[in-house]
Amino acid sequence: MSCVFCAIVAGDAPAIRIHEDEDLLAILDIRPFTRGHTLVFPKRHAVDLTDTAPDTVAAMAVLGQRIARAARVSGLHADGNNIVINDGKAAFQSVFHIHLHVVPRRNGDKLSFAKGVLVRRDTDREESGRLLRTALAQLGEAAQD
Amino acid sequence: MSCVFCAIVAGDAPAIRIHEDEDLLAILDIRPFTRGHTLVFPKRHAVDLTDTAPDTVAAMAVLGQRIARAARVSGLHADGNNIVINDGKAAFQSVFHIHLHVVPRRNGDKLSFAKGVLVRRDTDREESGRLLRTALAQLGEAAQD
Repeated sequence: MSCVFCAIVAGDAPAIRIHEDEDLLAILDIRPFTRGHTLVFPKRHAVDLTDTAPDTVAAMAVLGQRIARAARVSGLHADGNNIVINDGKAAFQSVFHIHLHVVPRRNGDKLSFAKGVLVRRDTDREESGRLLRTALAQLGEAAQD
Repeated sequence: MSCVFCAIVAGDAPAIRIHEDEDLLAILDIRPFTRGHTLVFPKRHAVDLTDTAPDTVAAMAVLGQRIARAARVSGLHADGNNIVINDGKAAFQSVFHIHLHVVPRRNGDKLSFAKGVLVRRDTDREESGRLLRTALAQLGEAAQD
């Protein structure tokens, strides 16, 4: 079995489990950015946002919200959370079984220095908007999941 | 009107619109991390993951997936996307009307250097897991949205 998340689902690889239901599993990341850094993923293998059913993405997000709320009221005393899906290698995805990160955050934590290091500008936002609208319309004409 | 996203919904502030439906609006970020950086938010004001209805979070995620797929097939030629909700000031939230970021990514783009700058470890993962499971169980006993 070459997918580590599928191995965890099957019980063939260890993990600290936070939540499990019929469709989803939530475990602690073995290389956490912060304490309580959790990964939510579907038990059924899918790679990224291009092949995951929208209902699954929705369920992942709702469970992610629930864990984020739990992190705030938990003994981790989170002041907030980053919810992240890295869709594709270009976006830092490293395990190619889709997953959603819940990263509990505290005021002034070690990640806070990362804010605003990067220049944020687009020299032609009108064109960027046109390109996305065109592609959305094309997707609307194609078969959906 | 003190909320800029509510002002955009009302048509009282400008934005480059990518998508609009009965419940959600998607616009380009005015300070994009990359070309096509889009924000998805509910028309009805909510602050963060603590007060947004789960159905709304689910709809935001599904629209985010759709825009991510569009970015890949669009003239922006994205190789992937980061999907992000910053839940709370501690997590870099700067506009306090909940929103989901879709950040189109390309192989080797300017954000790629950010990978792995931070140490990822937790000295007591077992305890972190216990704290989150306890809080999830507490939330399960409380009234839900």
